[in-house]
Amino acid sequence: MSETLDLTEVLGRLLRAEKILLLCHKNPDGDTLGSAAALYHALKRLGKPEVAVLCADLIPPRYDYMQIELFQGQFEPQYVVAVDVASIQLFGDSVREYAQRVDLCIDHHGSNSGYADALYLDSSACATAEIIYQLICKMGVEIDGVLADCLYTGISTDTGCFLFGNTSARSHEIAARLMEAGARVRDLNMILFETKSRARLAIESIALSNLEYHFQDRCALIYMTWEQIESTGVETSDLEGLTSLPRQIEGVQVGITLRQQPSGSYKISVRTQPGVDACAICTRLGGGGHSMAAGCELVGGLDNAKQAILAEVERELCRES
Amino acid sequence: MSETLDLTEVLGRLLRAEKILLLCHKNPDGDTLGSAAALYHALKRLGKPEVAVLCADLIPPRYDYMQIELFQGQFEPQYVVAVDVASIQLFGDSVREYAQRVDLCIDHHGSNSGYADALYLDSSACATAEIIYQLICKMGVEIDGVLADCLYTGISTDTGCFLFGNTSARSHEIAARLMEAGARVRDLNMILFETKSRARLAIESIALSNLEYHFQDRCALIYMTWEQIESTGVETSDLEGLTSLPRQIEGVQVGITLRQQPSGSYKISVRTQPGVDACAICTRLGGGGHSMAAGCELVGGLDNAKQAILAEVERELCRES
Repeated sequence: MSETLDLTEVLGRLLRAEKILLLCHKNPDGDTLGSAAALYHALKRLGKPEVAVLCADLIPPRYDYMQIELFQGQFEPQYVVAVDVASIQLFGDSVREYAQRVDLCIDHHGSNSGYADALYLDSSACATAEIIYQLICKMGVEIDGVLADCLYTGISTDTGCFLFGNTSARSHEIAARLMEAGARVRDLNMILFETKSRARLAIESIALSNLEYHFQDRCALIYMTWEQIESTGVETSDLEGLTSLPRQIEGVQVGITLRQQPSGSYKISVRTQPGVDACAICTRLGGGGHSMAAGCELVGGLDNAKQAILAEVERELCRES
Repeated sequence: MSETLDLTEVLGRLLRAEKILLLCHKNPDGDTLGSAAALYHALKRLGKPEVAVLCADLIPPRYDYMQIELFQGQFEPQYVVAVDVASIQLFGDSVREYAQRVDLCIDHHGSNSGYADALYLDSSACATAEIIYQLICKMGVEIDGVLADCLYTGISTDTGCFLFGNTSARSHEIAARLMEAGARVRDLNMILFETKSRARLAIESIALSNLEYHFQDRCALIYMTWEQIESTGVETSDLEGLTSLPRQIEGVQVGITLRQQPSGSYKISVRTQPGVDACAICTRLGGGGHSMAAGCELVGGLDNAKQAILAEVERELCRES
């Protein structure tokens, strides 16, 4: 397991370090990138000549405003820092060389596996960027527009623009400070939250046209066949977002999403309102999860999968009412 | 025109007033209701025995948590206060009796027509609830959970959950204070932002199935016939939300929404990215608006309306590129 540090110790180690490599997780999101970018800029501001960011996957061009310097072998890393990476599997194969020698990990995932030599973990933080904000304040580095943009990106994306349950008073407090420091929130919100891919919209259209209501409208169900998914070219991350859709409908207590896999089986996501146990529904079909979000996978055709999941939903709704 | 007050004068008048009637605008939203409810609770807390809220339309049951006391003739109003109502037409006919004798209006709309005897206007506030928050702080009334819920509702709904361009550092700052005071932000966000009506989803499905791309995908267009709109029973407020959809698509510079009216004509909304002038497009068709959001109405069938608007979009895109 990792040695556990407090924030002052984290700062001390970073101040002593040279030739610093900052590692992000694969399929990078706004928080891992915003955290790495903010830390990169702050360390440069402290006068470190050699700092760079490495990620196994390409960084989507919409994040160009972060002005990240990517690692391309321009120095021999002496100190490796992972940000927002909960386990070693999440680095991706192409950066394995460095993933196995992480000196320091800064993270907000309670599930962090402790793979790094030293760990700073705050699971009450809404995003790793919230921790990086505190660290940069402690450094005495002034937060300018670019730093503010990077940190706002991490906090806003991990909270779904201050919508999700992890949003805290501190999230809003920091957002206020970042706006005062010059974060271009209007432009960033447009880029981060008001842009959908054509593929996402196409699969959403298909899913909505396959919307069914069951059990006096207490259950809503959408499904997508593999052929439909493939025809849109949609990315997996876009598909994940769809699972919240059926439960959002007024009066619906159980929202079901069936997504056919290339193998033909159906991956099923169950989202419930408080009082209906999603985990109980899925566990009886060999899956599992949390009380309001669970999943399972069923072989056989669409009708079989539907029948099986609806039977368990009915059982749970009867128990509940 | 109204006499212009500062916040201290507003407070003085409210402290002297008795038998206070609080007026909301028709088709009430989270801000007019949250502002009225918060002011109602604060005035009660100051020991005013007779305060009540009046709105021309029914208050949607999802706002029940505000615990608003409605005016039903239980006292003879001596002081009438309008919150978040920019012009006298917005009260609705059934409350005309009081709308014509408003003593004080508290508002954040720069377009306020000055119909009240006295006006407190702060167009830099993201919501009227932001002003009410400042007023309640000035009163010295402690903000408890219910008050915090009401004020959070106003601020979060008018900013689209801190997404829209009117979101300021002050919006986030106040949200932080309200969470500390006990606002049940997780539950409220679920009610306010994660719940869609069946009708809204049905019309969204229809609109998406009618999605067209034009001019090398720089323009996206959706349309809804009156028959389709009527078949879903969707409310006008839900329809307004759809107009932002086509512009949200990656790479799209002009998003067009055509909505047939009961008369058969088409109401057209144009939303653009910076650099493309929505107002220029609509002005040439007899409409108008702002540089990134404009509208017009065209008689004749769907094909005519489409042809006319697309011709103007093409002209504007050619000018731009």
